[in-house]
Amino acid sequence: MNKTLVFHYLSRMSFVGSALFLLPAAVSLIYGEADAFRAFVIVAAGLAALALPMTLIKPKTNEMYTRESLVIVAMLWIVFPVAGALPFVISGEIPRFVDALFESVSGFTTTGATILSDVESLSHGMLFWRSFTHWIGGMGILVFALAVFPSSKDSLYLMRAECPGPQVGKFVPKGKKTAMYLYTIYGALTIVTIILLCAGGMPFFDSVCHAMGTAGTGGFGIKNAGVAYYDSAYIDIVITVMMLLFGVNFNIFYLMLIRRFKDVGKNLELRVYLIIFAASALLIGANIFPMYKTAGKSLRYSAFQVASIMTTTGYATADFNLWPEFSKMLLVMLMFVGACAGSTGGGFKVQRLIIVIKNTGKFINKLLHPKSVNLVTSEDKAMDTEVVHGVNSYLGIYIFLMMGSMLVVSLDNNGFATSFSAVTACFNNIGPGIELVGPMENYSFFSDASKLVLSLDMLLGRLECTPLMIMFVPSVWKKKF
Amino acid sequence: MNKTLVFHYLSRMSFVGSALFLLPAAVSLIYGEADAFRAFVIVAAGLAALALPMTLIKPKTNEMYTRESLVIVAMLWIVFPVAGALPFVISGEIPRFVDALFESVSGFTTTGATILSDVESLSHGMLFWRSFTHWIGGMGILVFALAVFPSSKDSLYLMRAECPGPQVGKFVPKGKKTAMYLYTIYGALTIVTIILLCAGGMPFFDSVCHAMGTAGTGGFGIKNAGVAYYDSAYIDIVITVMMLLFGVNFNIFYLMLIRRFKDVGKNLELRVYLIIFAASALLIGANIFPMYKTAGKSLRYSAFQVASIMTTTGYATADFNLWPEFSKMLLVMLMFVGACAGSTGGGFKVQRLIIVIKNTGKFINKLLHPKSVNLVTSEDKAMDTEVVHGVNSYLGIYIFLMMGSMLVVSLDNNGFATSFSAVTACFNNIGPGIELVGPMENYSFFSDASKLVLSLDMLLGRLECTPLMIMFVPSVWKKKF
Repeated sequence: MNKTLVFHYLSRMSFVGSALFLLPAAVSLIYGEADAFRAFVIVAAGLAALALPMTLIKPKTNEMYTRESLVIVAMLWIVFPVAGALPFVISGEIPRFVDALFESVSGFTTTGATILSDVESLSHGMLFWRSFTHWIGGMGILVFALAVFPSSKDSLYLMRAECPGPQVGKFVPKGKKTAMYLYTIYGALTIVTIILLCAGGMPFFDSVCHAMGTAGTGGFGIKNAGVAYYDSAYIDIVITVMMLLFGVNFNIFYLMLIRRFKDVGKNLELRVYLIIFAASALLIGANIFPMYKTAGKSLRYSAFQVASIMTTTGYATADFNLWPEFSKMLLVMLMFVGACAGSTGGGFKVQRLIIVIKNTGKFINKLLHPKSVNLVTSEDKAMDTEVVHGVNSYLGIYIFLMMGSMLVVSLDNNGFATSFSAVTACFNNIGPGIELVGPMENYSFFSDASKLVLSLDMLLGRLECTPLMIMFVPSVWKKKF
Repeated sequence: MNKTLVFHYLSRMSFVGSALFLLPAAVSLIYGEADAFRAFVIVAAGLAALALPMTLIKPKTNEMYTRESLVIVAMLWIVFPVAGALPFVISGEIPRFVDALFESVSGFTTTGATILSDVESLSHGMLFWRSFTHWIGGMGILVFALAVFPSSKDSLYLMRAECPGPQVGKFVPKGKKTAMYLYTIYGALTIVTIILLCAGGMPFFDSVCHAMGTAGTGGFGIKNAGVAYYDSAYIDIVITVMMLLFGVNFNIFYLMLIRRFKDVGKNLELRVYLIIFAASALLIGANIFPMYKTAGKSLRYSAFQVASIMTTTGYATADFNLWPEFSKMLLVMLMFVGACAGSTGGGFKVQRLIIVIKNTGKFINKLLHPKSVNLVTSEDKAMDTEVVHGVNSYLGIYIFLMMGSMLVVSLDNNGFATSFSAVTACFNNIGPGIELVGPMENYSFFSDASKLVLSLDMLLGRLECTPLMIMFVPSVWKKKF
């Protein structure tokens, strides 16, 4: 492996990381929170000090293969969450490191699961930092860096390693340009969300935090009651619509910008995504109707919750733990479906679901007509059998890792539904589960072992397993490959 | 489709079915149970009367393809369980048809889930019938018929449709001979079980019923307390060992008969199966040690339960519902693993698990070495990519059908763990789940809709989905194909 190149990237990225901490430091300064300010500055300085000697290591060659890019991504996604946990510990707002790490991983991976029972006790700086990690993690730490950095020919490789979902067609030839386009759209949509929330009477600070949480499909709230605190139909609708938008493949927005509306209409994933949303919202709306009495209220709550779970955001306007079991079961299943590929959302992804379903259909067809040729198609183009194969392998990895995690978490004896949904909610980067990890509860009661496993699950889910798993393949670390 | 051929087979099989009812009728006669005797004779006569006019339909051609064989298997597996439910209803011992159907489907599919809260109230004839359906269903209704019938060149096709697991190597060239070998081994092992149980002091009738339940990996008990009623370490050990044996691919026994012990030792599935068993038994044994105080008792209960769940039998010597959550979680996961391919057990099958794991390994390898050639191998032979593809498709079907079923069952509001494990236990033909469907509970409290869905799940699981699903493909019913 080209280790010097890995160090080169790590050093550059650490500077970016260091700079990131200055933003919450500024917020702390504004609100006059000395302890929080000090904590952010210490971590920023420390990270820069660590990165400085590494700049002396010059890469021997610039050759970057899948292996190098996967290792860089994996290391970044370990360094950033660890660094992100430190301000919580240093300021004393989350004194235990395991808890702070859980919170930080949950932020960067846009999960939104928290160990805080009283989030309102946090300082403004820390609240901002939690939501800001959602915003950075949502589009990707590396993608952010690539948008900022001078162009490099390796960048597309790196971006693929960070978002390895089955991508159908790519943006523009150059990685750097893609990263810039992505962040421009992302930033613009985030600002739109802030404006719309402020227009509904939400305070500016709250609007910024919620907009970042929505954009990154994160889910950290800043009130103990979550979004339900504002109790406004307008705010619910704004967040519902914006969550749905951030769950869409960003290619779609690009296609709309260059006015290729026909291609947007033909996009199968988008249609399936919206159909699943609408059908689930209606079913749950009907199921909870007896609780809320009016169709409007039932639909408002069900649409919000379905959008929140499908996009893997995790905001809640109602305690769906109290809903009938059918609604809870459907929500748990939607946790597995997830958002569109190429969006900020997590989960298995609608695109993969379509491939699995099509593949199964072809398999049955093949059984009946053994001599026919069956290719899985995507938008009328035959899909690479490698892609289909990869999706199926991913399904296998996905199930095994979740099962292993559930076994460890079950040692805590919190009940089947809690263990099952905690792992599901963390692995798919959603946040709340059911029973003891319901939307009005938190993850504080888990043992340290479970918290670490759940943190790992969040990372595995965010990076779609491959980069982290590859770190355990010994041959990756050999010089000759 | 060659409909005349389908009718031809249906008619022949109905005669076999009719004959089957004479055995429990004889048992009822011996115990002087007039109502039960009358019920069995009525159903036997009715089935024969229905089959008689069908004999007039002569097949135009003998051409049998996958399509025909799948349809025959599916129809048989609908006709037999329905006919099997009638004696319960006619005798009044299970008055409601939906309940009787659930019990009958559970019997033939070797699930062993029951709607009876007081099984001891049944007559001897009915108890025998329940266990006998396990024995017939375990090896396969069609395999039984093929063993009895004059030879036919289509038989291998039919056997494959009934047991579509990934078969590695086949027995003997001719289907009929295979069927006969299978039933000879099956019958011999069953008799051995009866003798061993009698030797342990279990009454003869009880021994026959339990031996049939063990052989078919069924799990219907004849006592309210299940196998725990006998409370004998000897009986527990005999049943544990015999369950494990019946969960082994029957090819293994054939290889042992013809003294090819080397091939037995090389069998990867067998080794993985035994390793999973041993590891799980030890883990659960350690987990429940604080409850039972002695290592012997802990291991006796854990080994029995692990063997029971892995082979999808479903017998219980302890109420594992009361065990710590780790044990329950592991047992639920073992429900998905299942037994070996080509055994009487259900589940996903160890062989498939191996293929999925190998396939995933190759996928990661391919990612790192894009130019290497990666074939999934089984016993050092490269496996057909079609097989690998098929296993992955099956995984997809398996998950979707289970999710759909869970949604329907959740309408009953029995709690997440109950709904989840009820569907899992029925689909994988195990029987008991956790919480409200635990080993000391039963399925009587479900709504009729849930009972029907769970019955369908048992059939889908037993036939590994394909035959039943194919009935819904319209083109199957066209004349020209």
